Amino acid sequence: MINPWSSASLDYEKLTRQFGIKPFTELLGELENPHLLMSRGIIFGHRDYGRIIKALREKKDFAVVSGMMPSGNMHIGHKMIVDQLIWYQKNGADIYIPIADMESYSARGIDFESSRKLAITEYITNYLALGLDFKASNVRVYLQSKNRTVQDLAYELAKKVNFNEMKAIYGFNGSTNMAHLYVPLIQVADILHPQLEEFGGPKATVVPVGPDQDPHIRLTRDIADRFKSTYNFVAPSSTYHRFITGLTGGKMSSSQPKTAIFLSDTPEDAEKKVMTGKTGGRESLKIQKELGGQPEECVIYEMLLYHLLENDEKLQEIHDNCKNGTMMCGECKSMTRDMIRVFFEKFSKKREKAAKIADKVLVEY
Amino acid sequence: MINPWSSASLDYEKLTRQFGIKPFTELLGELENPHLLMSRGIIFGHRDYGRIIKALREKKDFAVVSGMMPSGNMHIGHKMIVDQLIWYQKNGADIYIPIADMESYSARGIDFESSRKLAITEYITNYLALGLDFKASNVRVYLQSKNRTVQDLAYELAKKVNFNEMKAIYGFNGSTNMAHLYVPLIQVADILHPQLEEFGGPKATVVPVGPDQDPHIRLTRDIADRFKSTYNFVAPSSTYHRFITGLTGGKMSSSQPKTAIFLSDTPEDAEKKVMTGKTGGRESLKIQKELGGQPEECVIYEMLLYHLLENDEKLQEIHDNCKNGTMMCGECKSMTRDMIRVFFEKFSKKREKAAKIADKVLVEY
Repeated sequence: MINPWSSASLDYEKLTRQFGIKPFTELLGELENPHLLMSRGIIFGHRDYGRIIKALREKKDFAVVSGMMPSGNMHIGHKMIVDQLIWYQKNGADIYIPIADMESYSARGIDFESSRKLAITEYITNYLALGLDFKASNVRVYLQSKNRTVQDLAYELAKKVNFNEMKAIYGFNGSTNMAHLYVPLIQVADILHPQLEEFGGPKATVVPVGPDQDPHIRLTRDIADRFKSTYNFVAPSSTYHRFITGLTGGKMSSSQPKTAIFLSDTPEDAEKKVMTGKTGGRESLKIQKELGGQPEECVIYEMLLYHLLENDEKLQEIHDNCKNGTMMCGECKSMTRDMIRVFFEKFSKKREKAAKIADKVLVEY
Repeated sequence: MINPWSSASLDYEKLTRQFGIKPFTELLGELENPHLLMSRGIIFGHRDYGRIIKALREKKDFAVVSGMMPSGNMHIGHKMIVDQLIWYQKNGADIYIPIADMESYSARGIDFESSRKLAITEYITNYLALGLDFKASNVRVYLQSKNRTVQDLAYELAKKVNFNEMKAIYGFNGSTNMAHLYVPLIQVADILHPQLEEFGGPKATVVPVGPDQDPHIRLTRDIADRFKSTYNFVAPSSTYHRFITGLTGGKMSSSQPKTAIFLSDTPEDAEKKVMTGKTGGRESLKIQKELGGQPEECVIYEMLLYHLLENDEKLQEIHDNCKNGTMMCGECKSMTRDMIRVFFEKFSKKREKAAKIADKVLVEY
């Protein structure tokens, strides 16, 4: 049997070999009810996730930190982060969601008020609509610029990091502005502050990220170690997920609308966009019937894999029927279009409700 | 007649020529009641002090910002800063006194609690005892680490300064820690924040400093200009004062106790220390009677000039009697010793009183 979860778009195995990220599959058996993104290999790697499994098993406190950068609109690829947060919330984690308005300001020149508005009308609204429960006491969503605990910790941590290290990790140079230079320390503090005494002290913490964020994770782990004697920090764990492919075959990106299905799209727009998606089809129907399609290179298949089809057997069936040339792209696209319409019909109603309460959830401390 | 205020210890005129600092003497006539430190040339230079004179004359709002770095004990040379603040307070200025605990932490590794204690028991106590009125509504003394307005402004300003500029001014390099790298922006915000709307908006501001602080003043003026369109900042003015000479002839330094009379010294200790002071005396009494003494190279004379003798005619007389060889060092030292004993007898009582209320004056905003 062929593994239906594989993707050809990025050599994730090489990534893991090169940077010391461990394959997630090695831990899968130890999780009682892994998330679909885990069992399907979309979350493909980790650092020290054993600590999280232990905390889950022993029902100990642990934290998840997952920031959002308020710039542009959320696309369907971003949903996968929220899905993970919901899973962690159900499994007892404390959830910390920093809104990176300090980063938006220094790196992209977005003023703080614009960031706050966008965070509420777009990000928090979507998180709510996707099902994250912000009323629960174990969720804290905050603007970096309003979180004094994080800012204080960042400055304290900054003393044990020098410019050379920052330069090596972030590619800074002489013309980098000083706010941009400093803001990664805010993010380090975002990740480590759940371990301060006022939040229950040292604990396992996981940061779900894309592999491009790994240098930042490594810096945070190094800094945690340097402040071991002060705070007894547990080095944060991390997981690494694959990125969803854009409709045109490259990266799905908010700044390139043709590549992305946005969470704020109408059901009609989303439907239309699915129909433009690049498939793993062959040059002609005839060849495809002979050779079969290529789901591992198909944007439509990815939509099902990542987001639309929870039933593993059904997904396997679609995968196999594509591979053996019995299901053609047209049929598959129509089916996916129907699914995405249903999803967006429900979702846009949830968004409407969510929008009314989204400005109530921000916390300051 | 010889100028009794001149000093040979540093070529201050060269400093002014080289860096574009203007001589303070050119403005002296425009001040109604200049402080002794001004009329005696101890404050020797300025940038844009005309703005302050205008504000004084027109009774307009203006601000004075003068930080204190809580490290070590205050010596008698530091008194000159407080004397200026008292003068400005009487003349209607808003006084801002940042306590540079963020700098102490990043540059010297002093933790925030130690800084706070030292600021209260040493610096604020002395400022109170010297006569600064902290009960007045126009004085704000704060810890940088507790001033969120300043921290927020610093981060905002940091966007328009790059690493190369900081390197050129402060000599930073790759191994400089990130907190140290960032903290000058906090100081820039210390100076500019009195011009924010919540403190009455743009206004003339003066920063009294030693000439070694001028690069920092220049950076602050540059940054003020870069945010002209946002905040309409008035570029801050500055004054430059000579440093008092140490007892042994070099720099007076808190970290070298033999060079310094500390404000916390007992009257007896202060007396004894004065007697060790290097004078401008000649090799023998005989030669001194012939050639006269050299007050411009005399630590004792400086004590009178900077701190102990307010009467200009009396000072001129001592100066002349030294120069013409009619007053010898022994006599002059005895007189100065008596004056310093009287000063410290009164001052140590004031310190006792001040110590009881010193922990009440810190503000947060």
